[in-house]
Amino acid sequence: MSLITLTTDFGSGSPYTAVLKGVILTINPRATLVDITHDIPAQDIREGAVVLDDVANRFPEGTVHLAVVDPGVGTERAIVCARIGKRLFVAPDNGLLSRLAAKTPPEWIFRLENPEYRLDPVSTTFHGRDIMAPAAAYLSLGVDPSRFGPPHEALSTLEWPHPVVRHDRVEGVVMRIDSFGNLITNISGDMLAGRPTDGRACIVCNIYETWGVYNAYGEHPFGTLIALVGSNGCLELAIVGESAAERLGIGVGTPVVVAWE
Amino acid sequence: MSLITLTTDFGSGSPYTAVLKGVILTINPRATLVDITHDIPAQDIREGAVVLDDVANRFPEGTVHLAVVDPGVGTERAIVCARIGKRLFVAPDNGLLSRLAAKTPPEWIFRLENPEYRLDPVSTTFHGRDIMAPAAAYLSLGVDPSRFGPPHEALSTLEWPHPVVRHDRVEGVVMRIDSFGNLITNISGDMLAGRPTDGRACIVCNIYETWGVYNAYGEHPFGTLIALVGSNGCLELAIVGESAAERLGIGVGTPVVVAWE
Amino acid sequence: MSLITLTTDFGSGSPYTAVLKGVILTINPRATLVDITHDIPAQDIREGAVVLDDVANRFPEGTVHLAVVDPGVGTERAIVCARIGKRLFVAPDNGLLSRLAAKTPPEWIFRLENPEYRLDPVSTTFHGRDIMAPAAAYLSLGVDPSRFGPPHEALSTLEWPHPVVRHDRVEGVVMRIDSFGNLITNISGDMLAGRPTDGRACIVCNIYETWGVYNAYGEHPFGTLIALVGSNGCLELAIVGESAAERLGIGVGTPVVVAWE
Repeated sequence: MSLITLTTDFGSGSPYTAVLKGVILTINPRATLVDITHDIPAQDIREGAVVLDDVANRFPEGTVHLAVVDPGVGTERAIVCARIGKRLFVAPDNGLLSRLAAKTPPEWIFRLENPEYRLDPVSTTFHGRDIMAPAAAYLSLGVDPSRFGPPHEALSTLEWPHPVVRHDRVEGVVMRIDSFGNLITNISGDMLAGRPTDGRACIVCNIYETWGVYNAYGEHPFGTLIALVGSNGCLELAIVGESAAERLGIGVGTPVVVAWE
Repeated sequence: MSLITLTTDFGSGSPYTAVLKGVILTINPRATLVDITHDIPAQDIREGAVVLDDVANRFPEGTVHLAVVDPGVGTERAIVCARIGKRLFVAPDNGLLSRLAAKTPPEWIFRLENPEYRLDPVSTTFHGRDIMAPAAAYLSLGVDPSRFGPPHEALSTLEWPHPVVRHDRVEGVVMRIDSFGNLITNISGDMLAGRPTDGRACIVCNIYETWGVYNAYGEHPFGTLIALVGSNGCLELAIVGESAAERLGIGVGTPVVVAWE
Repeated sequence: MSLITLTTDFGSGSPYTAVLKGVILTINPRATLVDITHDIPAQDIREGAVVLDDVANRFPEGTVHLAVVDPGVGTERAIVCARIGKRLFVAPDNGLLSRLAAKTPPEWIFRLENPEYRLDPVSTTFHGRDIMAPAAAYLSLGVDPSRFGPPHEALSTLEWPHPVVRHDRVEGVVMRIDSFGNLITNISGDMLAGRPTDGRACIVCNIYETWGVYNAYGEHPFGTLIALVGSNGCLELAIVGESAAERLGIGVGTPVVVAWE
């Protein structure tokens, strides 16, 4: 199998995405292509990093994940391929891989500098097409990544908020709004282990409060604000049958506290 | 061939869809995946049922259709696989398959309960990922569906509006708005057979009227409200070159009457 | 390989797109399907033609490009397949292929009239499904295109604006807004060859001006209006980190002038 996924900020329906696929299939006609998302907000490296971290390991071992959120295209930032855990990644080195790499240090990182594995000529504005898509295709064909260029010492990192676990509270933030408008936090279910999750747990986000950490959306009446440990293992806030983000006007970065009396 | 389609309310560009695909390709790396749509309005089981009914039989025999519109995730509703006609379906038993099954009774239905064919652990909030996607992948590999769990007696049904055929009129409703804003009704072309379709037929929807049932959009001037029997065999109302739904402010459920004097 | 791409105005997430895919995979279960875009504005043949021209040649030789932007469905326009350069195209003959064909005259064009290679019955409102998708699938299987119908003399053309190159200026127009809101013009980089591209070049679009033609978005502060030769080889106007189309309120067809004193 040669499975390549694509994660970009090009927008759903952008022909630029098709161009990446055309380049890949020209090099490896047998590649299987899967879109992770193209709806990363334009140039939002952080959101791209969070999505990759959530999704990448759900794909088979050996999958090549191509990620193009690249506001610095044409400037000095490096473009790299890396092995992180059992999967391969191609991306600009701008922090896009930093959330994954913070959990699992890359086994190797190489810079994509060898013109033999790039399109010719290379534009100054679309390195996704000219450098990254070809590298993903060659990786899927089994090309040794050391042929792409010299080793790259370390990936750039972004500052990520760390939840704070205290004796009477856990403090985190909203990391991502999902497509249902649920507020996904960086407070993992593990951080709540051994603490009451019934009505003694008070979850506060902005001016809103709810009590108890539940198991399913459908247990509560339509319109109720609830907290539950979601499918990625982290605490989330949801309004049953509606978008919590829209109803409450809450965005990424808003503090969330779970407190016990 | 192992062809699997996906129909969800996750929204175009949702990474949750990619997660389903990652799970499927981990189990069956040779599966061919096709998106039917991910733009079913959130938790709108009816719309999902209508779309599946319109589209499922356009796919090859043996196709596995995975459908995840699942507001009751984590509650007591069953999750099933079923053979309906010559295709296989995996879905929550909440009515999502009921429009198809009303026309073609399922040959068999099994509940997805065997932990051997689920991910481990199973979350309480994403059974699409943990139970349904694996079952679709195993079905595409030829696993006998009786291995998933016990037979399921009958699918849950939803109430569907039935068109009324009288001597001087046929009464139906708008079932679906398509992506061009055309108003697709539940009045089939057959119900008009043997009746005049020229200017003697008056089609009324809300406060709007048009006369005659035509064959093509392009026969009329831009901006004209027309009625025609559309590509799924049902009467639809369209405004040439525009969105009838937007221009007329008409939604699903609005009554439509074809009347002859 | 049998690679088929799809370009339509059905909208992202439209089940009509899935129907095309179902029809294709029923005829050629081994086809690889790639979406170019389904977000061509409804019935906007010009935009479809521009996108096809930008993207089609990025795909492997022999790719079958299926394009359905078909406001005249059911009327007298022909439906054709054509070989243009090293790729195959299936489309209504309404100008959709005219921008490609203006650069590379088609090697052959055949009309899709043979009922043997159409679905039966053929609707009056969805020839994409009933005529074009089957032809694309049969082409991908290697069926000789002369079997589809008689030769078609020439493709319909649309009037395309031609840039004007003068001794002290080049005059063009905005041809397309990309998904980042960049304004892509019809002024190719070649037309600027041998002229100053530093601050002596003044680029004017509507009431906005910028000086110099640059190489990358990231070289300038956030919010700056810049001109650069983009990834398709044409001059484009961009606002760093924002949508120029939205910020400046500029649409397709707006004149753009590059002037030297």
